[in-house]
Amino acid sequence: MKQSQLFTKTRKEAPRDEVSKNAQLLIRAGFVHKEMAGVYSFLPLGLRVLDKINSIIRKEMNAIGGQEIFMTALQDKNIWEKTSRWSDDVIDNWFKTSLKNGTELGLGFTHEEPITRIMTNYISSYKDLPFSAYQIQTKFRNEARAKSGIMRGREFMMKDLYSFSRDEKEHDEFYQKAGEAYMKIFNTVGVGDKTFKTFASGGSFSKYSHEFQTISDAGEDKIYICEKCSIAVNEEIIKEQNKCPECGNSKLKEGKSIEVGNIFSLGTRFSEALGLTYNDEKGEKQFVIMGCYGIGPGRVMGTIVETLSDEKGIVWPESVAPFQVHLLSLNEDKEAEKVYNELEKAGIEVLFDDRDTRPGEKFADSDLIGIPWRVVVSKKSLENGGVEVKRRDGDDGEVMSIKELIKKIINN
Amino acid sequence: MKQSQLFTKTRKEAPRDEVSKNAQLLIRAGFVHKEMAGVYSFLPLGLRVLDKINSIIRKEMNAIGGQEIFMTALQDKNIWEKTSRWSDDVIDNWFKTSLKNGTELGLGFTHEEPITRIMTNYISSYKDLPFSAYQIQTKFRNEARAKSGIMRGREFMMKDLYSFSRDEKEHDEFYQKAGEAYMKIFNTVGVGDKTFKTFASGGSFSKYSHEFQTISDAGEDKIYICEKCSIAVNEEIIKEQNKCPECGNSKLKEGKSIEVGNIFSLGTRFSEALGLTYNDEKGEKQFVIMGCYGIGPGRVMGTIVETLSDEKGIVWPESVAPFQVHLLSLNEDKEAEKVYNELEKAGIEVLFDDRDTRPGEKFADSDLIGIPWRVVVSKKSLENGGVEVKRRDGDDGEVMSIKELIKKIINN
Repeated sequence: MKQSQLFTKTRKEAPRDEVSKNAQLLIRAGFVHKEMAGVYSFLPLGLRVLDKINSIIRKEMNAIGGQEIFMTALQDKNIWEKTSRWSDDVIDNWFKTSLKNGTELGLGFTHEEPITRIMTNYISSYKDLPFSAYQIQTKFRNEARAKSGIMRGREFMMKDLYSFSRDEKEHDEFYQKAGEAYMKIFNTVGVGDKTFKTFASGGSFSKYSHEFQTISDAGEDKIYICEKCSIAVNEEIIKEQNKCPECGNSKLKEGKSIEVGNIFSLGTRFSEALGLTYNDEKGEKQFVIMGCYGIGPGRVMGTIVETLSDEKGIVWPESVAPFQVHLLSLNEDKEAEKVYNELEKAGIEVLFDDRDTRPGEKFADSDLIGIPWRVVVSKKSLENGGVEVKRRDGDDGEVMSIKELIKKIINN
Repeated sequence: MKQSQLFTKTRKEAPRDEVSKNAQLLIRAGFVHKEMAGVYSFLPLGLRVLDKINSIIRKEMNAIGGQEIFMTALQDKNIWEKTSRWSDDVIDNWFKTSLKNGTELGLGFTHEEPITRIMTNYISSYKDLPFSAYQIQTKFRNEARAKSGIMRGREFMMKDLYSFSRDEKEHDEFYQKAGEAYMKIFNTVGVGDKTFKTFASGGSFSKYSHEFQTISDAGEDKIYICEKCSIAVNEEIIKEQNKCPECGNSKLKEGKSIEVGNIFSLGTRFSEALGLTYNDEKGEKQFVIMGCYGIGPGRVMGTIVETLSDEKGIVWPESVAPFQVHLLSLNEDKEAEKVYNELEKAGIEVLFDDRDTRPGEKFADSDLIGIPWRVVVSKKSLENGGVEVKRRDGDDGEVMSIKELIKKIINN
């Protein structure tokens, strides 16, 4: 895409009331727009990143058999009353609204209740199980404070998967697989080395649930890492047992962290409340065992910005970058256009800075936007036989031919 | 995909309170779930159709230069007060909610106000124009009645594009292009021959706006078609001038219709209210000229069901079908599995009915679900040298080899 066509521009300043680093950088670079505290619109560059994160998540969810669906934001009070989660005394972050006739509705902050009701139409026999379904959909949470940018929004996108199993054993197998899929996702998006599967309280149906926590000073959580097992425990668990649940190691390393995902065994909490049963081999009625598995793609995006940016701007991992190459023309538009066409022909996504702007501004914008490969076409680079190529996360530039560049990117 | 793995099943009956044909069929076939009147969740088959419609729309919007973004549902009262659209007396279908501190918020029923405010950050000079941006995002409309299934929802997906131009001429050119892109979309999804560009009132800034109306008995609108020009006028226009605005023909043919899209010149209504200006070549401040362009992908899906289904069920056009082939094994699972693998290898999307179910039920389900190619593997078909192939919209089946089948589908 030609940058002269992109409607966003970089900005020197983020809105004054924006305190989080992720939103400051994303607003300055033109990825998101702040509608109000905790409510962000995604602009072209930002949506490209979000779509890539969603594709990575979708791929792993499909790989473990997840069937994609799309539920609604508007929520029917009746089903939430059955699980005792309608009252604002129990759930303190509901947004509520109402129909013309006065009927109260909620805006979904999660979807256990509606998906359990949906499944009462489709599950009747043990032959219908196990399976899982997921969606990537907008959630609403009426947070009293919203100061973490796109990491804790009042409106945000979430991938939530729900599993339906016949018994504990079947559930545990899927739960294990889902945890592994989560680590694959965090590895692919570039925060795997900082992200720990973290033991948390399990509620009534299992000893533990698990969070996926990414080490970051911007985190609102604290975790305690067992370096032997590469796992962590959260604050609840450290208070209870003060040691690694896997190896017993009590020398745990404290760190601030961002919860980028969580997986939870629900047992029969929702199937009992909403009557989701199946007939087993003997013809006896049993409650379906459920699990839920969440990742916030926007929070993942914010976490990447928090953990990988530097003083000049954002540093996107290649897997989620809005474009692979940022091509800068320094008054060599004709030659640069040729490079642009060749890169696009090779299937490489290019943001081509063809704007009539000072070189210093182009370099600064490129560092702020954070595309992995910066390719400069200048009088100097052409004299030296090609284009100057520099990684956003690397130090020095290197001059090479377009052919060499394409080979380098594709083999990367 | 193997049908034994798909969590949905067909149902004999739709919910009793469901009066629309589109929702009755879509619920019975397992495409959608009714959460409440006018609020539908999309299940795996339904989401596949919706995604295909969205891809077709996205392709045409990108082709006319639209830049994709994703705005929020939660709406800031301040900007809607500036355009006098906050009050429930003016806009009678707002859903409203509020923050913990009492601040009132709206749920977006359209997005002129927020996109105009966003653009005040990015438009300053005539050099920044023209351009357009669009989103595919969930809208909320508090309809007093909701009886048209997924065609008029209280919560529904919408593609809304907004154009930003320097002057009327530039705007008109884009408006024309957008109208052509819309007809391409309706042609591709299979309702082009029944869909008419329809003249409607233009508001303060232009003589006409345009609706895209698809002839259907399920329609809530009435249009008057000029068969010479292949355009139509709506009820407002017929009252005013009682003739075709293009050729003057006054023999117009009346029909019931569904509004599947509309395009509208906004002039400076929103740019004046929200201060969206640019400096022209002479350095003088001018208001940006805007247009808006809407299509509801869910309504398009409902329209396809209303206009193309028959007494046995849905008939999907190939472009939007959840799968291209419905493969039915009649007690020949081993042979059918081979066919399944070959079709998938050829890049054809197959729903493979591998369930342990009576043939009659498989045929009835296949007709209800409406996948374009039905391929049966039975003892008889194998004896006759292959598989029995029948189009959902055709009459007789024909036996052919897998190779011939693949060729036939790919060349279709």
